[in-house]
Amino acid sequence: MIEPYKGVRDFYPEDQRIQNYIFAAMRRAVESFGYEEYNASILESTELYTAKTSEEIIKEQTYTFTDRGERSVTLRPEMTPTVARMVAARKRELGFPLRWYCIQNFFRYERPQRGRLREFWQLNADLFGVSGTEADVEVITLAYRVMKELGASDTDFSIRIASREFLDFAYDAAGIAKEKRQEMTRMLDSKGKDAELPTELLNALSKSETFGYFEKLQHSLRERGITNVVIDVTIARGFDYYTGVIFEVFDTNSANKRSMFGGGRYDNLVGQYGSESVPAVGFAMGDVIARDFLETHDLLPTLPPTTKLYLAPASEKDFAEAAAFADSLRTEGVNVAVGMKHEKIADHIKAALKLGIPHFAVYGEKEKQSGMITLKNIKTAEEKNVALTDLPSAL
Amino acid sequence: MIEPYKGVRDFYPEDQRIQNYIFAAMRRAVESFGYEEYNASILESTELYTAKTSEEIIKEQTYTFTDRGERSVTLRPEMTPTVARMVAARKRELGFPLRWYCIQNFFRYERPQRGRLREFWQLNADLFGVSGTEADVEVITLAYRVMKELGASDTDFSIRIASREFLDFAYDAAGIAKEKRQEMTRMLDSKGKDAELPTELLNALSKSETFGYFEKLQHSLRERGITNVVIDVTIARGFDYYTGVIFEVFDTNSANKRSMFGGGRYDNLVGQYGSESVPAVGFAMGDVIARDFLETHDLLPTLPPTTKLYLAPASEKDFAEAAAFADSLRTEGVNVAVGMKHEKIADHIKAALKLGIPHFAVYGEKEKQSGMITLKNIKTAEEKNVALTDLPSAL
Repeated sequence: MIEPYKGVRDFYPEDQRIQNYIFAAMRRAVESFGYEEYNASILESTELYTAKTSEEIIKEQTYTFTDRGERSVTLRPEMTPTVARMVAARKRELGFPLRWYCIQNFFRYERPQRGRLREFWQLNADLFGVSGTEADVEVITLAYRVMKELGASDTDFSIRIASREFLDFAYDAAGIAKEKRQEMTRMLDSKGKDAELPTELLNALSKSETFGYFEKLQHSLRERGITNVVIDVTIARGFDYYTGVIFEVFDTNSANKRSMFGGGRYDNLVGQYGSESVPAVGFAMGDVIARDFLETHDLLPTLPPTTKLYLAPASEKDFAEAAAFADSLRTEGVNVAVGMKHEKIADHIKAALKLGIPHFAVYGEKEKQSGMITLKNIKTAEEKNVALTDLPSAL
Repeated sequence: MIEPYKGVRDFYPEDQRIQNYIFAAMRRAVESFGYEEYNASILESTELYTAKTSEEIIKEQTYTFTDRGERSVTLRPEMTPTVARMVAARKRELGFPLRWYCIQNFFRYERPQRGRLREFWQLNADLFGVSGTEADVEVITLAYRVMKELGASDTDFSIRIASREFLDFAYDAAGIAKEKRQEMTRMLDSKGKDAELPTELLNALSKSETFGYFEKLQHSLRERGITNVVIDVTIARGFDYYTGVIFEVFDTNSANKRSMFGGGRYDNLVGQYGSESVPAVGFAMGDVIARDFLETHDLLPTLPPTTKLYLAPASEKDFAEAAAFADSLRTEGVNVAVGMKHEKIADHIKAALKLGIPHFAVYGEKEKQSGMITLKNIKTAEEKNVALTDLPSAL
């Protein structure tokens, strides 16, 4: 009974700090481009997804159940139908280009395995109302910026671009029957992304009109300083709603080559929920893959607690004074945990070590009288005397 | 299909900003006291709750369903069983006093009404490992600090303290049979909190040992500057796991008198999930009630988008240059949305107005050549010319 439910995670503070670090990087990147945060409930009516997204996902991979009022409800497996619904509902009041993001959790009923869990967190960023290339360029740039904000170098990842249309052209060129394509696209999406296309197919592809569009897109991205972009017809996102460009961000680490996340254009989805269509392009990036990337590329810094100081009362009778002194530090913006429970200073030090709080000090009558306090670095055991009034700046 | 599921909310950016404002205040308050963030999945095994919390809540008020693997799962209705489970699982590695918080969402299957929704967000803050009064004092102080951080005055709210034990003493004094007490406590919890106790009952209560404890608690809180605390036996939290002090924070606004949130001591819950018991005290505060309080007391400031500037390209051909200039502003920490789609400047201005972005500027050949740009305050229509290099500081 002390274990979490299968395929979901407990986030102890040291794990939550990693989540917060990743989410803060995502937030900085998307907010700098004018994306505003929105949210919705994790619980949606099942009909929101029916026939709007991959059938496989709804039928086999969602948590869907009947509520006490006999409604079929689903724990959202992705954000796109929700955000499309929200835009459709207020299309007239909203300003365009509309830039929205959220960082929330999602559920899929899957066999838990490396990189795939039943619950995951995901950044979703979407740009609505613009059908031109400039919107595609911005969203791909944004995915690139999130990677950079996470500390990645250009050589750590590559961005592969293609489109459904382009894929159809490839299917035509290769003589694949129409009825087999949906299934094949799903296969392409779930297989390893290391396949090489035959030269004659590549030649055929380079003659398509779409190829020209991708060259233009690649050129615009280069102008923005983004050079790690390749055209790759083998990418195929697992959702049926994409109508234009699709892209995937790949980890180039030879031990870990794989698609990390992606997105694309879906110009028809908002129209399916409302009366008017709204062009849209966006992407989503998950927490599991982000953390994995940071760990593989050694990009995760040491993340200390938000608490800066463990303040131990010199003795039980000093508790009220120590608590009052802690309050004064808080007004100066210092996060302070006051020691309790332990009587011996050595036990307080042990507690601070276990809690990972970087600084330690004892407060009692002596400190109050002298106006001086001994500040200890809990890891190095280094000590220095500072005036009580200088403590905030010393931390 | 464009509506959210019954009893849950969509958070459009203007709503999400209010959530973020409330959550940031909560975060500042609890982090200043050394509380570290944790999290867990919203999905828990149903057995986590069975017999550990209010039966009424589990049987009648939760979202409980069977997963594809025939496990009974529940969307968490509260955080306390989860956090107790997590502490029990790692009791030996954790340092005490352990201070944890989270701000997450919860589900209850209720008839939606004012202040009560099927999904709500809630701050949970808990202190583990300390059975002494100082822990009770800290947690009540923390609840007080969250209110202050939200801008409340001491006269806007009062904190009422009592305990199960104290309530039992009152039941004894009033001659209420033991078997009727659980039901009566629930009634007390769900009724309005404006009841006055008969004088003879109050006199009897004042002679109990527990009364002495509350006087001590009140005294310690006064020493910390918290004077809006009263002893009130009529408060009763709706969970069975409380073992000591319970408290509730009341809105004192005469139009809106009611319990807003509360907490208490639950020394036996961790022990029920693990082999060793760990004393615990904590509280939870919901987003719906917090927003309602801020609105009733006129404490909610105007919250602008995080985007500072809408930068419109002077014409279509200036787009790439405008995007590059926006990138340079981003490196200086300015959040910039670049105009797309519209050809006329007037349409860009309309879009910026609808989006609520506070500043507006046009960028093109003229601005590039002159090194000057016209910055417009979108609400007042005031304009000023600034050097391109001074734009970040002008925003």
